[in-house]
Amino acid sequence: MTAHPKWYLPEDRYFDPDPAQRRVAMELYASVADLPIISPHGHVDPRLLADDHASFGTPADLLIIPDHYVFRMLYSQGIRLKDLGIPRTDGVLIEKDHRKIWQVFAEHYTLFRGTPTGAWLAHSLRDVFGIEEKLTKGTAQGIYDEIETKLRSQEFRPRALFKRFNIEVLCTTDAATDRLTYHQSIRTSGWNGNVRPTFRPDAVTNLLNPSWRENIRKLGELSGIAVDGYPRFIKALEERRTFFKSMGARATDHAVESAYTAELSPAEAGSIFQRGLQGKANAEDAHRFTAHMVMESARMGIEDGLVMQLHVGALRDHNELVYRSYGADKGADIPVASEFTRNLRPLLNRYGIDSRLTLILFTLDESTYARELAPLAGHYAAVKLGPPWWFHDSINGMNRYFDRVMETAGIHNTAGFNDDTRAFLSIPARHDLWRRVGANWIAGLVVRGIVDMEDAREMILDISYRLAKKTYKLE
Amino acid sequence: MTAHPKWYLPEDRYFDPDPAQRRVAMELYASVADLPIISPHGHVDPRLLADDHASFGTPADLLIIPDHYVFRMLYSQGIRLKDLGIPRTDGVLIEKDHRKIWQVFAEHYTLFRGTPTGAWLAHSLRDVFGIEEKLTKGTAQGIYDEIETKLRSQEFRPRALFKRFNIEVLCTTDAATDRLTYHQSIRTSGWNGNVRPTFRPDAVTNLLNPSWRENIRKLGELSGIAVDGYPRFIKALEERRTFFKSMGARATDHAVESAYTAELSPAEAGSIFQRGLQGKANAEDAHRFTAHMVMESARMGIEDGLVMQLHVGALRDHNELVYRSYGADKGADIPVASEFTRNLRPLLNRYGIDSRLTLILFTLDESTYARELAPLAGHYAAVKLGPPWWFHDSINGMNRYFDRVMETAGIHNTAGFNDDTRAFLSIPARHDLWRRVGANWIAGLVVRGIVDMEDAREMILDISYRLAKKTYKLE
Amino acid sequence: MTAHPKWYLPEDRYFDPDPAQRRVAMELYASVADLPIISPHGHVDPRLLADDHASFGTPADLLIIPDHYVFRMLYSQGIRLKDLGIPRTDGVLIEKDHRKIWQVFAEHYTLFRGTPTGAWLAHSLRDVFGIEEKLTKGTAQGIYDEIETKLRSQEFRPRALFKRFNIEVLCTTDAATDRLTYHQSIRTSGWNGNVRPTFRPDAVTNLLNPSWRENIRKLGELSGIAVDGYPRFIKALEERRTFFKSMGARATDHAVESAYTAELSPAEAGSIFQRGLQGKANAEDAHRFTAHMVMESARMGIEDGLVMQLHVGALRDHNELVYRSYGADKGADIPVASEFTRNLRPLLNRYGIDSRLTLILFTLDESTYARELAPLAGHYAAVKLGPPWWFHDSINGMNRYFDRVMETAGIHNTAGFNDDTRAFLSIPARHDLWRRVGANWIAGLVVRGIVDMEDAREMILDISYRLAKKTYKLE
Repeated sequence: MTAHPKWYLPEDRYFDPDPAQRRVAMELYASVADLPIISPHGHVDPRLLADDHASFGTPADLLIIPDHYVFRMLYSQGIRLKDLGIPRTDGVLIEKDHRKIWQVFAEHYTLFRGTPTGAWLAHSLRDVFGIEEKLTKGTAQGIYDEIETKLRSQEFRPRALFKRFNIEVLCTTDAATDRLTYHQSIRTSGWNGNVRPTFRPDAVTNLLNPSWRENIRKLGELSGIAVDGYPRFIKALEERRTFFKSMGARATDHAVESAYTAELSPAEAGSIFQRGLQGKANAEDAHRFTAHMVMESARMGIEDGLVMQLHVGALRDHNELVYRSYGADKGADIPVASEFTRNLRPLLNRYGIDSRLTLILFTLDESTYARELAPLAGHYAAVKLGPPWWFHDSINGMNRYFDRVMETAGIHNTAGFNDDTRAFLSIPARHDLWRRVGANWIAGLVVRGIVDMEDAREMILDISYRLAKKTYKLE
Repeated sequence: MTAHPKWYLPEDRYFDPDPAQRRVAMELYASVADLPIISPHGHVDPRLLADDHASFGTPADLLIIPDHYVFRMLYSQGIRLKDLGIPRTDGVLIEKDHRKIWQVFAEHYTLFRGTPTGAWLAHSLRDVFGIEEKLTKGTAQGIYDEIETKLRSQEFRPRALFKRFNIEVLCTTDAATDRLTYHQSIRTSGWNGNVRPTFRPDAVTNLLNPSWRENIRKLGELSGIAVDGYPRFIKALEERRTFFKSMGARATDHAVESAYTAELSPAEAGSIFQRGLQGKANAEDAHRFTAHMVMESARMGIEDGLVMQLHVGALRDHNELVYRSYGADKGADIPVASEFTRNLRPLLNRYGIDSRLTLILFTLDESTYARELAPLAGHYAAVKLGPPWWFHDSINGMNRYFDRVMETAGIHNTAGFNDDTRAFLSIPARHDLWRRVGANWIAGLVVRGIVDMEDAREMILDISYRLAKKTYKLE
Repeated sequence: MTAHPKWYLPEDRYFDPDPAQRRVAMELYASVADLPIISPHGHVDPRLLADDHASFGTPADLLIIPDHYVFRMLYSQGIRLKDLGIPRTDGVLIEKDHRKIWQVFAEHYTLFRGTPTGAWLAHSLRDVFGIEEKLTKGTAQGIYDEIETKLRSQEFRPRALFKRFNIEVLCTTDAATDRLTYHQSIRTSGWNGNVRPTFRPDAVTNLLNPSWRENIRKLGELSGIAVDGYPRFIKALEERRTFFKSMGARATDHAVESAYTAELSPAEAGSIFQRGLQGKANAEDAHRFTAHMVMESARMGIEDGLVMQLHVGALRDHNELVYRSYGADKGADIPVASEFTRNLRPLLNRYGIDSRLTLILFTLDESTYARELAPLAGHYAAVKLGPPWWFHDSINGMNRYFDRVMETAGIHNTAGFNDDTRAFLSIPARHDLWRRVGANWIAGLVVRGIVDMEDAREMILDISYRLAKKTYKLE
C-alpha cells in the first residue's frame, strides 16, 4: 500500500502558523498531552465495559452505525440510511454486508474534509489502529481487514482501550428508569475502571414523550413508589436520584428545547400531572411542566449535591420520515435560537445564588455566549458554562467559545471539557483536540502580552483537567 | 499625474500575513485565478449584452448610478441621492452633469476605506481600465476622461468585456412576467456568450406588491391562461417556468422577508387568492400565501428540475422617503433576524428529502450559519447553502462563512460563489476576491494540519468553479 | 519584593504575533499613543474634580468598591458583596477593614486572567502607581501600603491625574434632576479641566422607575414648571436640556431594554402620563411611553443640537436579592437579544434622514452589528455606531466590532471610542487598549493589502481621536 497517500496529522496540528505562537502552544500542549482523561459527560454504552469480553463488533459497528455525525453527512448527499446499516424501527430490511457499508463510507470520505469528524476519524484510525494510509476507494477493504483483525484481539477490547486511553473517569448518561445493570456489573466485576452513571429524567419529565405514561409506570416500579400523582412523582424521582448517587453518579442531565423556567403552584403541577396520566396533557402543559421540573431539579441538586447539566436548544427529530423509520438520535436534530437571560431568571433568583448548586449550561446558539451566558456565569455563584457542544465541538467552535466566553466569564466559571460522545473510539481524539486548541488559544494570549507563562501554565492545566474534575465533583 | 498615490493592490492581497500560510494561499490561488467565471446568480441587465453596440454610458452611469452599494454610503454622509444622479420616480429634477457627480464621488472616496466596495472599485479601475492612480479630488477629472475615452472604444463594449472577463456563463434575474426580449436577442444574434435567465416570481406571489393585480393580468396575458383563480394561477406559473426553461433558465429565485413555509389547503389558497384579486388581501393573507408559494415552488422544482434559490431576511425599503422618491433597490433594505429551523420544517419534511430538489438558502443573519443552516444542509439532501450574501459578500463576511459553515455542512453542501451584482464591471473583482479569500482559508487549514495539499487542491477547485457549476446544473 | 513575579505588560501587547503586522501596528500605535484623551461618555463622579483637594480614599475605595466589573467576578465565585465593602441599602453591616477587602481581592486575582479588567488593573497599578509586582496573596499588603501612601500625595489627587492622563475633555452622565452642583464648582473654581455633563432623563421617562413620581416632582421644582401633565413634562425636559447645554453638555443619554420606538398621539401620551401620576401605569404603558420619549428626544436633539446616545439591551437588576440589598448597578445587569431594524423604523423615518440629528447606537447584542447596525449606519445620515460597550469593551470585543461593523458602515459612520467607566483610574488603560487594538486591526488591513499606509495613518487618527471629537461636537 505504499503508493497511497498518508493521513496528515502533523505533530503541531491545530496550532496557529506563527512560529512564536506555535512554540508556546507546543510547550503548553506538551505539559498536558499525557494527562488522564476526565470524561464527565457522554453517551458511551456501559455494556461495552460491563465485562472483559465485550466487543465492538465490526469496523462499521464501531465507526459508522452508532455515529450520527458520520451517517448524517452521508445522508445529506443522498445516501440512504438503510444502505449504511442503520437499524430501522419499522422492520424494513437494511444493509447487512458491513464491508459494503464500509466501501460506501470510504468512497465518500472526502465529504469530511475540514470537518471535526474527519479529524477524529483520522486520529482514531492512525493512533488507535496504526493505519497510516488515508481511507479511499482503493484502501477501503485493506483497512477494513486490518481493523477487523485488531478488533478480534484482547488489546482492542473496550476495557483494554479504556486503560490505553488513560481514562481516569467516564460518566455515561442513563434514563431515570434505567436499572443500571451494566453499571452494577462493572462495580461487581472487580475491574478498576472508574465508570459512573448520570441521571437523566427527560423521559419522565417531558409529558410529550410518546412513552411517558409507560415511563411513569416503570418509574413507580423501580422506585417502589406508586406514582399516582405529582407528590409521589417527586418522591420517586428523589428515590431514583439517591439510587444513582449510590451507584456513583455525580450529576444529572436535562435536555430541553427552551431554557424556560417557572415555579408552578403544587395545585397547577398536580393538575397538569393528572392530565398527563389521563393522556390529556397538551403542548402548553408540557412546556409549563418542563419549566417547573427544571426548577425542581435545581432544588434537588442543592439537597443531594448532584451537579445539574442543562442542555438547551435542540429541536429533536426535525425530519419526521427519519424519525418514523429509524427513531431518535439519527442526525436530524437541528438547533434553534435560545434565550437564557429571561428564561432562567426564576431559577437563578431562587437557586442560582446558592453556592451548593452547580448548574452547567450548554447552548447550541453561539450568539448567547457573549451576550447572555458569560455575563450570567460571571455573576451567579451556581452557574458554570459547559464546553462547546455538538456542532460546536470543533476547532472553530472552540475558538469561538474561548473568544466570546472567557473575557467576561473568566476560565474559572467554565466547566472544562466534555466529549459528549457515543463513539468510544473518538474519546482520546476529542480530548486531544481540545487540549491542542486550548493550548493554542492560551499561547495566543501569551504572544499578545495578555497573560504571562506563569498564568498560561496554570490555565492549560485548568482547562485540560482540573476544571472538569472540580466542577463535576470528581476529586 | 506622477505625484498621485497609486492603487494598493498587491499580488498577495487578502492573504494572512504569516509567510507559510501566504505561500500555500498563493499556490492555491494561482491554480484557479484564471479559471472561467461561473456566475449563476446576479442582476446584470441583459440589455447590455443584447447587441454588439450596447454601451455602458458615462463613468457615472457605469460605476455610481446603478450601484446602491456606492450611493448608499455617500447618502449615509448626508449627500442627496438626486445630487448623485439617481433617477427619481416623482419627477423632481436630478443632477445631469456626470462630471460633477463623479467629482463628489471622488471627494468622498475615503469613505470606502476598508470596504468591499472600495476593493472592487480599485480592482475595476486598475485592472479593467488600466488606471494606476487612486481616485481623489485631484485625480477625479483626469480619471473621468480616461474612462470616458475607453468606454467609447469597441474593447469596452459589454460583450467584449464579457469575453475578456472569461465568463463561461452568466445568469440574470427576471420577473415572471418578463418577455425575455433581450435574452431572445442574445440567442438570435449569433453571439456565443452563454447568458441565461432566472425565473423570479416574487411580484406575482407577494400579494402586498403594489402592482400585484397588474402583474397577475400580465401573467395571464403572457401565459395565455386567464388567471381567474388559484388553480389557473398555478398553471400560468408552470407555463412561464416552462418558457424560461426553454430560454435556458436553470433556476428560480425567491426573496422573502421570513423563511416561513406552510402548505395551505386548496380552499384556503383559493380564497386568499380571490381576496387578492378583489384588492382585499391583508398582511396575514400575504404572509400565509407567500409561505404556501415557497412550498409550491419546491414542488415545481422537483417536477421541472429548476434549482430553487431562497433569499431570506431583507426588510425592503426601510426608508419610506427614499422609496417614495426613488423607488425600490436604493440601498435602503435592512436585514432582520431570521429563523430557518422551524420555518422550513414543513417544506423540508415534504420536499427536502427528495434528491431531485435543489434548494439553495441565502441568509443575511449570520447567527443562523452555524446554528441552523449548516446543520440543515448537513442533513437534508435537497439543501445547499448559498455563499455569503450582500453585506456579507466581503473579506470578513467570507471568513465568517467559512468559519461557521464548513465544519458542520462540509464544502459539498455549499453552492460555490455568486456575485449577485448589477454592477457588471465588478464581476471579475468579486470572483477574484472570493478565490483569494477561499485560497487563504484553505491554506489556513493546511498550515494548521487540518487538510493536506491533495485535499486543498481539490477544495479550491470546488469552491472556485465546480460547486457552482454542479449545483446550478450548468454542466 | 524582588522574588515576586512582575506584571506582564510588554510594549507590543495586544498586537498580532506576525512580525510584519506587529511592525505596522507599532508604527500606527506610536503615532497616536500620546494624543490627548477624548472621553465623551462615562460615569466618573464629578465630585472628584470639584475641588483641588478631593481624594480617592483607600485603595479599596479606588479600585474595588465602585467597580462592578471587579466585584461581580468575585461574587461569581461565592464571595459575598458585603465582605468586599459594597454598601448595602438595607443597613446590614459590611466589611469596613479595607486591608482585609484588599487581601481577598489579591487572593482571587487569578480570576482575572485573560479578562479586560485584569488588563486595566495591571496597567493602572504599574503605569499610574509604579508597582512592578503582580498582585498576589504575598504582595497584597505591601502594594496596599504603596498605593495608600501615594494616594495621600498631591500628585495623586484626581485633578492632578486628570492632567497627567492628558484628558482633553471628560463627559459625565447626570440625571435630568441633577442640579449639577459639582459641575458648577468645577466651572467656578478656575481650574482649566474640560469636564461636561450629559443629560440622562431615564429616571423621569421610565414610568416603572420606583421613584418616578418623586423624580417628576423634582423635575418640576428644578425647571420651575409645574409638571401636571404631559405638555408641561415636555416643556420641563426642554428647560432642563437648555440648562445642561448652558453647563457645557453636548449630549444626552438614554438606556432602554428594547429599541422600540413609536410616536403616540398627544392624547395617548397624555393619558399614560396621567396614569403614571396616579400610580396606575402598567408595564405596557411604560413600554409605549418609553418608545415615544425616545422619539421625542430625537426631535429635541434636532432642535437643540444635543447629540443623542441610545444604549440598548441591558436587563437591569437580574438578581433580585442583590438589588434589594445593594441597589442598582451592582454587576447584575444581563444583556438580552435586541432588535433595531423594525424597532427604530418609526424614529428613523421621522428623524433619521435629518443631518441635524446625531443618533449614536450602542448594543450588547453583537449579532446586530453586521446584521442591523452597520447597514443602518451605512444608510441613514443621522445614525452613528458607538464603540463596543460594557462586556464587549475588551480586546476580543473590539476585534469583533471592527470585523463586523467596518466593512459595511465604513469607519466614518462610527463614533470613535468611549470608556464609559466610573473607574477614573482605568481611563488611560481603556483608551490605550482601544488604540492598540485599533492599530493592530488597521495593521491587519495593511499587511493584507486592503488599505495602504496613507489611509492607515488617517484611520488610526480617526478612531483614536478625531471621530469622537467630531461626533460629539467637542471641536
